[in-house]
Amino acid sequence: MNALGRHFLVELWEASNLDNPPLVEEALVETVRRSGGTLLDTKIVEFPNGACSGVAIIAESHLTIHTWPEYGYAAVDLFTCSKDMDPDAGIDALRKYFSPGRIQVVEVKRGLTA
Amino acid sequence: MNALGRHFLVELWEASNLDNPPLVEEALVETVRRSGGTLLDTKIVEFPNGACSGVAIIAESHLTIHTWPEYGYAAVDLFTCSKDMDPDAGIDALRKYFSPGRIQVVEVKRGLTA
Repeated sequence: MNALGRHFLVELWEASNLDNPPLVEEALVETVRRSGGTLLDTKIVEFPNGACSGVAIIAESHLTIHTWPEYGYAAVDLFTCSKDMDPDAGIDALRKYFSPGRIQVVEVKRGLTA
Repeated sequence: MNALGRHFLVELWEASNLDNPPLVEEALVETVRRSGGTLLDTKIVEFPNGACSGVAIIAESHLTIHTWPEYGYAAVDLFTCSKDMDPDAGIDALRKYFSPGRIQVVEVKRGLTA
């Protein structure tokens, strides 16, 4: 079976800096860079409680983050159609920016073809 | 267990209109509308073979699509932190725009709290 895309669902818990949208945007850019992706555009939306949503569109698909500062939680998705991207290096960048006490990662194969 | 977000991973196969970026963008907007989301911004990126990536940032999180016209395949993600959004209505909109022969949907609970 071949997958057209690899989709990493990343859960950050006990994390810091989740209410700092400029830093969240910087983290997205750095996560793309470290994982070897090609950044096309970013967009950050702030919410009144300091939470934010961020999207990086990359040539290889996307990277998104949604933060819940009140829970110390962020949901990150890295979707790539490239076999050359290195998600582990990207996750190292997330560790650097958000210092999570726990990280859970699930990889989902998307578009499985026989 | 309570989930902070519901994340629907949607696989469209034997689908049409995947190489029509303006229509893909319209489909994103309509999928958000039908599912009861609040659209904040959209972005579409076209690739040379007609494939495209689309992102809708919504107040409730995000909707993305990546198309592989050569496989008749699209990967759609609907992530919502709102209990009020109706993903089934959104999927009906996807059916209308892309006429997929097959749809697979997986729901992933994100940010599970005890």
